[in-house]
Amino acid sequence: MNEPLPVLITLGDAAGIGPEIIAKSWGLGPAVVVGDAAVMRRALAQCGLQRPVAVLSSPDEPVPAGALAVWEPPGLPMGLVDCVQGRVDARCGEAAARCIEGAVAQLQAGCGAALLTAPLHKEALHAAGSPYPGHTEMLQALAGGLPVRMMLANDVLCVVLVTVHVALREAIEQIDQANVLDTIRMTHAALVRSGLAAPRIAVAGLNPHAGEGGLFGREEVEHIAPAVQAARVLGLDVQGPFAPDTVFMRARRGAFDAVVAMTHDHGLIPVKYMGLDEGVNVTLGLPFVRTSPDHGTAFDIAGTGRADPTSFQAAWRLAQRLAGNRAAN
Amino acid sequence: MNEPLPVLITLGDAAGIGPEIIAKSWGLGPAVVVGDAAVMRRALAQCGLQRPVAVLSSPDEPVPAGALAVWEPPGLPMGLVDCVQGRVDARCGEAAARCIEGAVAQLQAGCGAALLTAPLHKEALHAAGSPYPGHTEMLQALAGGLPVRMMLANDVLCVVLVTVHVALREAIEQIDQANVLDTIRMTHAALVRSGLAAPRIAVAGLNPHAGEGGLFGREEVEHIAPAVQAARVLGLDVQGPFAPDTVFMRARRGAFDAVVAMTHDHGLIPVKYMGLDEGVNVTLGLPFVRTSPDHGTAFDIAGTGRADPTSFQAAWRLAQRLAGNRAAN
Repeated sequence: MNEPLPVLITLGDAAGIGPEIIAKSWGLGPAVVVGDAAVMRRALAQCGLQRPVAVLSSPDEPVPAGALAVWEPPGLPMGLVDCVQGRVDARCGEAAARCIEGAVAQLQAGCGAALLTAPLHKEALHAAGSPYPGHTEMLQALAGGLPVRMMLANDVLCVVLVTVHVALREAIEQIDQANVLDTIRMTHAALVRSGLAAPRIAVAGLNPHAGEGGLFGREEVEHIAPAVQAARVLGLDVQGPFAPDTVFMRARRGAFDAVVAMTHDHGLIPVKYMGLDEGVNVTLGLPFVRTSPDHGTAFDIAGTGRADPTSFQAAWRLAQRLAGNRAAN
Repeated sequence: MNEPLPVLITLGDAAGIGPEIIAKSWGLGPAVVVGDAAVMRRALAQCGLQRPVAVLSSPDEPVPAGALAVWEPPGLPMGLVDCVQGRVDARCGEAAARCIEGAVAQLQAGCGAALLTAPLHKEALHAAGSPYPGHTEMLQALAGGLPVRMMLANDVLCVVLVTVHVALREAIEQIDQANVLDTIRMTHAALVRSGLAAPRIAVAGLNPHAGEGGLFGREEVEHIAPAVQAARVLGLDVQGPFAPDTVFMRARRGAFDAVVAMTHDHGLIPVKYMGLDEGVNVTLGLPFVRTSPDHGTAFDIAGTGRADPTSFQAAWRLAQRLAGNRAAN
């Protein structure tokens, strides 16, 4: 029997808390850091951890027992460890981009089980000349431009967003039957992959009281309800559209396995309400599993050894679970 | 020294759970039910409570010790107790409207400390020919059409809404500097009245990431930030606009005393997320204090004695607190 494939963990911004939370979490399962060996050695030292770093020539090379495995992707800038922690630096942005590109190429070549991304800094990425505002857009482009959706999950709530980083006016324009139906289908597929045989999905409305029968807006009548109906015809266990103000509470209590939300903040307000520690971000629609923690680079505490790895570890475990179940299906 | 004025409690829909939660909560403080004596006797009996009902000729008449005080307002329909519980009935809608009108007239004449409204049923109100979709609009009209705002509060979070029961597209159109500034000022005034000397108010943005500097929408730049700035010039402790997806979590943890939210669901999703039991609705801008529980008539359990009075009791206590502090100021 073959060794299980490693989760590929991208470094994120080398000046942020990414290297530290990777160092603190090492050992959760087979993994390779796609990043810079010197930065990882510094992170281990700053956390007071005694662990050797093994530099691999390819991500599928065997890793010496107990070592933190690093594969340095092509084009990684030199001297990354000299960048001041907690500061925006174009070299860190460039390194973050090279790590993602390298990891995606390895995944597409079958040399990894899933992608786990440590946080990058959008300004540093921009300073490096990247045309992408963040991870999701870059991954989507590298994977050939397939439609993707953002899923956010913690221990009690899982939401998937129909619209994301656009003005609310523009988000309303983007809501149509096809867009909502695609989101429902991608949600269903992801939940099946995570091990649920028959996931129960709720769809939140857009307007107050889900439009109150058309009185407070027609998007539910014209777009969202038809999408729910079409998904039901496909045999999916989908209900709604429900009033946005209570459906997340109902899902938290166990009535549904996931909620499809029309806007960024309808979905993220409840996911983040009880705290950010446990939140995991999953990108649906890519040809590989990708998860990430639900926080940023935390430049204010980078290098102090005080970063909380809880969300990162939850993202790591979920990546393994999604990858494992995918392989089994 | 005079007796403290009673809280005036409107019956709500006689076929709903209003009479029952009033009966179960009796004794929290000086109060008079503006409603139907026979309906209240039935509610006491259905809850297994032995308590006499005293029918007053005016709300400021002394109440016999231990009795549940009822004042029947002018125009109350006959035979209300014959309406089947749990069903929409125009007589119940009409009675609910007469109780509100009667209570407001008494409050305007100085014969009550505050208004606490049990839930009415919008369809029954409509069937009775009322032009108002609900309590808030009726109270606003009875009080002379002053601008009002909806505040929702529970033990850990207090939000005030700039826009309420309109389509999201229309809500976006309603957001302007004056509207946001009015809301901030009404929020500040209400918190001061509730006993906070220097309330800390956060203002949530409308767009994802509060517009990310204009990249995801311009409402923050053009309307919301100028309103925050104008409020600060007035000496109010106001901050924002903040990203909607994290500001409610921060307020829950104690960073702010209240959050001004731009839309119905941005504000109500977090208030309702942990459950509806403790939620209280406060109408700001009326010439008297008005609170209500954060739930409806629950026709499915009306008459069973199983209604949970927690939210109603929280609304009662808050009405007393707001009225008491108002008198003291």
